[in-house]
Amino acid sequence: MVSLRSSGPLAVGGPLTMHLGGAESNVAIGLARLGHRVAWVGRVSDDELGEFVLRHLRAEGVDTSGVRRDPDRPAGLMFLERRTEDVTRVQYHRAGSAGSALSVDDLRGPLAAGPRLLHLTGITPALSDAAHQAATWAAREAVASGTAVSLDVNYRARLWSREDARATLTPLAGYASVVIASADELDLVAEPGADEATAVAALLDRGVRTVLVKLGADGARAYTRDGVTHAPAVPVTAVDTVGAGDAFTAGYLSGQLDGLALVDRLHRAVTLGAFAVAGHGDWEGLPRRDELSLINGSAAGTTLR
Amino acid sequence: MVSLRSSGPLAVGGPLTMHLGGAESNVAIGLARLGHRVAWVGRVSDDELGEFVLRHLRAEGVDTSGVRRDPDRPAGLMFLERRTEDVTRVQYHRAGSAGSALSVDDLRGPLAAGPRLLHLTGITPALSDAAHQAATWAAREAVASGTAVSLDVNYRARLWSREDARATLTPLAGYASVVIASADELDLVAEPGADEATAVAALLDRGVRTVLVKLGADGARAYTRDGVTHAPAVPVTAVDTVGAGDAFTAGYLSGQLDGLALVDRLHRAVTLGAFAVAGHGDWEGLPRRDELSLINGSAAGTTLR
Amino acid sequence: MVSLRSSGPLAVGGPLTMHLGGAESNVAIGLARLGHRVAWVGRVSDDELGEFVLRHLRAEGVDTSGVRRDPDRPAGLMFLERRTEDVTRVQYHRAGSAGSALSVDDLRGPLAAGPRLLHLTGITPALSDAAHQAATWAAREAVASGTAVSLDVNYRARLWSREDARATLTPLAGYASVVIASADELDLVAEPGADEATAVAALLDRGVRTVLVKLGADGARAYTRDGVTHAPAVPVTAVDTVGAGDAFTAGYLSGQLDGLALVDRLHRAVTLGAFAVAGHGDWEGLPRRDELSLINGSAAGTTLR
Amino acid sequence: MVSLRSSGPLAVGGPLTMHLGGAESNVAIGLARLGHRVAWVGRVSDDELGEFVLRHLRAEGVDTSGVRRDPDRPAGLMFLERRTEDVTRVQYHRAGSAGSALSVDDLRGPLAAGPRLLHLTGITPALSDAAHQAATWAAREAVASGTAVSLDVNYRARLWSREDARATLTPLAGYASVVIASADELDLVAEPGADEATAVAALLDRGVRTVLVKLGADGARAYTRDGVTHAPAVPVTAVDTVGAGDAFTAGYLSGQLDGLALVDRLHRAVTLGAFAVAGHGDWEGLPRRDELSLINGSAAGTTLR
Amino acid sequence: MVSLRSSGPLAVGGPLTMHLGGAESNVAIGLARLGHRVAWVGRVSDDELGEFVLRHLRAEGVDTSGVRRDPDRPAGLMFLERRTEDVTRVQYHRAGSAGSALSVDDLRGPLAAGPRLLHLTGITPALSDAAHQAATWAAREAVASGTAVSLDVNYRARLWSREDARATLTPLAGYASVVIASADELDLVAEPGADEATAVAALLDRGVRTVLVKLGADGARAYTRDGVTHAPAVPVTAVDTVGAGDAFTAGYLSGQLDGLALVDRLHRAVTLGAFAVAGHGDWEGLPRRDELSLINGSAAGTTLR
Amino acid sequence: MVSLRSSGPLAVGGPLTMHLGGAESNVAIGLARLGHRVAWVGRVSDDELGEFVLRHLRAEGVDTSGVRRDPDRPAGLMFLERRTEDVTRVQYHRAGSAGSALSVDDLRGPLAAGPRLLHLTGITPALSDAAHQAATWAAREAVASGTAVSLDVNYRARLWSREDARATLTPLAGYASVVIASADELDLVAEPGADEATAVAALLDRGVRTVLVKLGADGARAYTRDGVTHAPAVPVTAVDTVGAGDAFTAGYLSGQLDGLALVDRLHRAVTLGAFAVAGHGDWEGLPRRDELSLINGSAAGTTLR
Repeated sequence: MVSLRSSGPLAVGGPLTMHLGGAESNVAIGLARLGHRVAWVGRVSDDELGEFVLRHLRAEGVDTSGVRRDPDRPAGLMFLERRTEDVTRVQYHRAGSAGSALSVDDLRGPLAAGPRLLHLTGITPALSDAAHQAATWAAREAVASGTAVSLDVNYRARLWSREDARATLTPLAGYASVVIASADELDLVAEPGADEATAVAALLDRGVRTVLVKLGADGARAYTRDGVTHAPAVPVTAVDTVGAGDAFTAGYLSGQLDGLALVDRLHRAVTLGAFAVAGHGDWEGLPRRDELSLINGSAAGTTLR
Repeated sequence: MVSLRSSGPLAVGGPLTMHLGGAESNVAIGLARLGHRVAWVGRVSDDELGEFVLRHLRAEGVDTSGVRRDPDRPAGLMFLERRTEDVTRVQYHRAGSAGSALSVDDLRGPLAAGPRLLHLTGITPALSDAAHQAATWAAREAVASGTAVSLDVNYRARLWSREDARATLTPLAGYASVVIASADELDLVAEPGADEATAVAALLDRGVRTVLVKLGADGARAYTRDGVTHAPAVPVTAVDTVGAGDAFTAGYLSGQLDGLALVDRLHRAVTLGAFAVAGHGDWEGLPRRDELSLINGSAAGTTLR
Repeated sequence: MVSLRSSGPLAVGGPLTMHLGGAESNVAIGLARLGHRVAWVGRVSDDELGEFVLRHLRAEGVDTSGVRRDPDRPAGLMFLERRTEDVTRVQYHRAGSAGSALSVDDLRGPLAAGPRLLHLTGITPALSDAAHQAATWAAREAVASGTAVSLDVNYRARLWSREDARATLTPLAGYASVVIASADELDLVAEPGADEATAVAALLDRGVRTVLVKLGADGARAYTRDGVTHAPAVPVTAVDTVGAGDAFTAGYLSGQLDGLALVDRLHRAVTLGAFAVAGHGDWEGLPRRDELSLINGSAAGTTLR
Repeated sequence: MVSLRSSGPLAVGGPLTMHLGGAESNVAIGLARLGHRVAWVGRVSDDELGEFVLRHLRAEGVDTSGVRRDPDRPAGLMFLERRTEDVTRVQYHRAGSAGSALSVDDLRGPLAAGPRLLHLTGITPALSDAAHQAATWAAREAVASGTAVSLDVNYRARLWSREDARATLTPLAGYASVVIASADELDLVAEPGADEATAVAALLDRGVRTVLVKLGADGARAYTRDGVTHAPAVPVTAVDTVGAGDAFTAGYLSGQLDGLALVDRLHRAVTLGAFAVAGHGDWEGLPRRDELSLINGSAAGTTLR
Repeated sequence: MVSLRSSGPLAVGGPLTMHLGGAESNVAIGLARLGHRVAWVGRVSDDELGEFVLRHLRAEGVDTSGVRRDPDRPAGLMFLERRTEDVTRVQYHRAGSAGSALSVDDLRGPLAAGPRLLHLTGITPALSDAAHQAATWAAREAVASGTAVSLDVNYRARLWSREDARATLTPLAGYASVVIASADELDLVAEPGADEATAVAALLDRGVRTVLVKLGADGARAYTRDGVTHAPAVPVTAVDTVGAGDAFTAGYLSGQLDGLALVDRLHRAVTLGAFAVAGHGDWEGLPRRDELSLINGSAAGTTLR
Repeated sequence: MVSLRSSGPLAVGGPLTMHLGGAESNVAIGLARLGHRVAWVGRVSDDELGEFVLRHLRAEGVDTSGVRRDPDRPAGLMFLERRTEDVTRVQYHRAGSAGSALSVDDLRGPLAAGPRLLHLTGITPALSDAAHQAATWAAREAVASGTAVSLDVNYRARLWSREDARATLTPLAGYASVVIASADELDLVAEPGADEATAVAALLDRGVRTVLVKLGADGARAYTRDGVTHAPAVPVTAVDTVGAGDAFTAGYLSGQLDGLALVDRLHRAVTLGAFAVAGHGDWEGLPRRDELSLINGSAAGTTLR
């Protein structure tokens, strides 16, 4: 998806900057920067905007060999407007886009390669029936072949209602070993109105191994059958919160792939979240492995010479 | 429609500038800058991009009171890529846009106000069946109530085939007193493959009073029952050819509204075309009435102090 | 007036951005964005900079039909320099400008249209004797014909001394039903050195119905014969305080035109002030009516998807 | 003077870039870049814009120790609008500016230093009576003390009429040993309507040693009592003609100060003119002495590695 | 190598844009865009600038798995200054750079992979003794193992003298099956002062199969034992000649890899050269395979809708 | 030195802005802006980048007549990357630069002029043996001829180890009457690991008159034989900490040159530091003398009209 960002009110106009956008690609880049081998799979338009998307994924070292070009559908777009210093509004032009036409066939090859992990978000099934089916098929297939599944709820109010989301995502969560959600998204993978404890318990009961609850400036909680672990956020000067959740997810999954203990996974997760909010762009500021120590709760305003 | 312009290859990225785009709004602005009272009618999205469109029309003094806001559909978009210094590529995201949902009802009120002139382009009917019907209805209604109709063929290969265009535009041309086309568009309002003379003759036979053939750097020809008049292009340094045809049309219609003789209408038409190509943007460089004399075939590289 | 903004020290140079500036036009835009019918009246230069001013007013839906173009005088200019992150300096080039030549005749027509409200600022009378007379004439005429008058003191030290301002504005305040001032401006419409209570009492005694005291980050107080009401500021991340007072005024007057209770007028006033300081530019970030709820004291750093 | 440049129509807005502007400072910089010792004398505002002017002059190595800061008057401004690719419009805000208040006293000290050459333009006397008197006094004083005087006619239609210019500049030319004019300026230092031959003859009769006629793309002619010399323009791709005349003058005067033969002075003059038109800005592209050979009539499109 | 471009004189300052630069990477990108599998081999600094280089190569689909990161040496830099519209100056900061430390060991692995073609330029051996030895070793090794070698002379006066270049490049040319040179570079791979015919004959005698002579706006000549073929340049509006030679080389080699006839290779070569000069940047404007037809000698100023 | 700044991660690319950089030039500009006569001495490359450096120094009124141009060495460069909002990384390209070749001979002339003060930093001796010798020679010579010496430790970890720095700077400090250091730099001019009290005592014992310890947001301490004085930092909104230490030094030295009491020197020092952190750029925001009162601990967010 191409993200078009304005630095002020869209109605007034002004230059837009083009970025690669998308929760899944953010996670993929977060992992690739940390040195993991990662592929992004999906459909992109067979035009210049699609080329733009691929150029960025390749630049970041994400494997795009499984991407399918769609000659008939345009690129998905996202307008990201900084309406005030504190309020960012997102507007999607994704109906009928190449990405929304994702199908089971598009995922067959990449899954057959047998990845260790399949990461899904709640955005894909919101795009179309085909995409919904593809996501569900992939989750089931992954589990069947021993690939772990992670699911970030990523609820987008502009794409569907909470009811539709719940009806779709709750079954999907059943395939996941890791479920990631913000506090107000938890009941989208549980009973309507369920509080955190109830929702988490239900998920763990259904076989989810870890439930991660993102708390923004308050850090995150990780629930397992063994209990709950809390990690405070790493304090930084926040300039752009977009992408922070995806960065968090990438950090957690990176720790999981590295075989870290839960507390260390969580720390990497909040550290990546900190990088995301301390830099401009969805993913541009994410760290390489040797940069992880740049942000560690230490002093603000550092100049390294 | 919102036009998003890149100054280089889209695939490489870089800032996009936002502009008001659209053949009809270009013509409306061209007329308004010359002091004519002009309204633009259509549907725009009920969001920030729609607001952007309206802000620009209002800024230029175009009456937007008849515009309908569509709460359910997104703004139409156009990506305008300068692929090389000589090659500009246009890509539309208009399927399902607010503008494509134009309906007869949207036009009823504005037409009832009894304008002297109704300007249509061949783009509107290409957008959807509803828009096609609306345009045809408006042309018929206008003729019935004594409003003159002008039609610019404006063929867009990205929107429909030549065959479809011809089947739609040829009947529409029958309502027009002025038909404007580039040389290779003429047979879209006549028999397939008709040469210029044949196509023009057929149009005049069907009651069109004036047929204008745009020739780019070679100027333009105007055909009436009295014969043909040629106006050479006004020589300027061309920096951006987008919008030149619309400027030409605005110049001609301005002359007609002012009651000028044919040759003077043509001269104003090519003068406005020259302003359009000598300035950046689709319409930004169009002249106010007191600026018409800035371009008159005189010396290039003038500094007025 | 054209406002030329630098993002750093002017002496070092760098690009300037052009904006429409002026306390009265800020208020007019604030009202128009909220859906009120509003006209801006004044003189603008009959050149490109004057055209720039009119384009922005029209874009915002402000009626400019009563504006007079002055062929002999240049546009007024304001250089706005961000000297440090916290210190913004303003420098005027208004002596001899078109705006400074405002005359009684310029205001005759617009006032004859019988608006519900006439908003004046203390800047206009500072520009020239003619402008002073025009403002006074308009206030008197408005009162005589039943049009309410609001006056924002808006003291500008670069334009005149406190003594001159007091001598002019104190009588002018007598025509107003609403007087708006910051705390340190109150004694410019009262006795020199008068404290807030004394100054307010004197104004209310002279027939002013409401006295609004702007307190910046501390919100505002509204005094009537019934007592005093305080509204705290709406907390936002401030990026640009320029225009906040005008936004406050527009919010208050909007509430008054809507027939809101005093406390609700005040709330709208501080809300508009919050929009102004949370966005860049004097007026660019002001809300449309459906955007008022975006800022309501809730969480910072929100992304709406 | 501060020059504010827009890259498109001013009425549409967009960023302005700040530049040092002014015919005399252009000449001063042209000479300083070539290694000559040169001072610029005048009044500049005692504010940030004045500081901007001085920073640029100092950066270029022009002596500013004789400049007087005026605490009471604003900086002179020039808006430079690229209206179309070929038409640049200039608009002055110089009435009442610091520069327009130039007085005899301002020039006394610098002239007492006994420079080899005093360069004057026809712009200074157009600014005010005081400036007119100062220029005339300086020319007379210079001649009296053996300092050569050069005068560039530099007629500015926005500042005064041809009649006023002629009445002022014709006597001034009598003090000059070098007079520089474009072809259509010649009769501003001679009888009204005088043709080139007549005007030149009259100037030479009055004691002017050299009359330079700037012909733009056709180069230049130099007249002395010994006859006429023509130098063709140096062919370059022109991107910005502003400042070309001043560059020409600087080149000629540099050659004179270096003791070059007339033909070599002319060649340096047209070479500097070529640098000015081949680069953006009034003076930014002017060459240092070791760069003179970069432009010499040779091939376009050269990359030096 | 990181290329830092200014759009005007460096001494005046202004923003620099960062680009991937280097003759070899230009050729690699040209080939990759046309769909060929291509790897770029070299040393890049183990810092952010090195990362920048790799990101661009990967974005373009160039294999970077054989690149070696050098922790001890900085990135090579190139300042590219547009001194006038026609004169571009290049300044290198490559002494001691990572790239200059290229060694035989760095090339061993990549060559062992058995590519069909090894492309070398005359720049690499100019950087250091080690790089010289590495290039020579690679050429010899390639020939020994049946990999064809192409050599672009690419003389850089800022790096070494013509004498040194000749002494190094003449033996190197003996390994090449294709030698590419501009007309004034030919005698750097032949006897000093040799004219084109003599130099070409000597190269063909030494076993070079094809000698390509780049003629800029005049196209190119290709010499083989069978005679000479000339291809005219494809006419386009030139905006940036940097990289044109590398584009030409990429086009030729692409044709060779595709098994095209000589005349068709040459046509592709001049077509890629046309793309390079018609777009900004060294390689940004190079075509994908489906874009080759965008430039074909047809009309300038085309808008494709 | 030329400082190239990116506003985000260097690896992602984007425009770089060119600035004059260097601790000594920052101090020189700080002093010149406050009206002191100051010369900067060093070597700069004899190319466009060197010219850029000199243009900025001259613009700021710093005497550059003693600067030596080096035709054989490139300009020193510094890449300044804003990696996150809080973390700025600096990368030097100074090995082999013109500045690193500073020699005793370069300093002979300027020192012979008998300045009141010689300011040295710990960066110069880190650049090369020659520069080390030059700095030491200059310090000794200054003391011998009655010129006071100030030394700012300015430790740069990218240039040398703490051990090497200590070995060089400790003897150098012996020549200084003022030594400036941040708290963690103090033991670089004392015994390894010495705490603040010990290090300061040792310096005072060796004859240093004043030891200034920079504490960032906590202000600064000044030690003399009479005891210690603390000055809190002046509270401002910090946007760019680069150059703050140099500004502090310039403020202190300015106070010393003005004959202020220690406490007033310190106050000026922290005031200049506040200007540096409240503005963008290393030195661009430093105050002129009449601007010192703009920052005085008063309210943030001030607009001066």
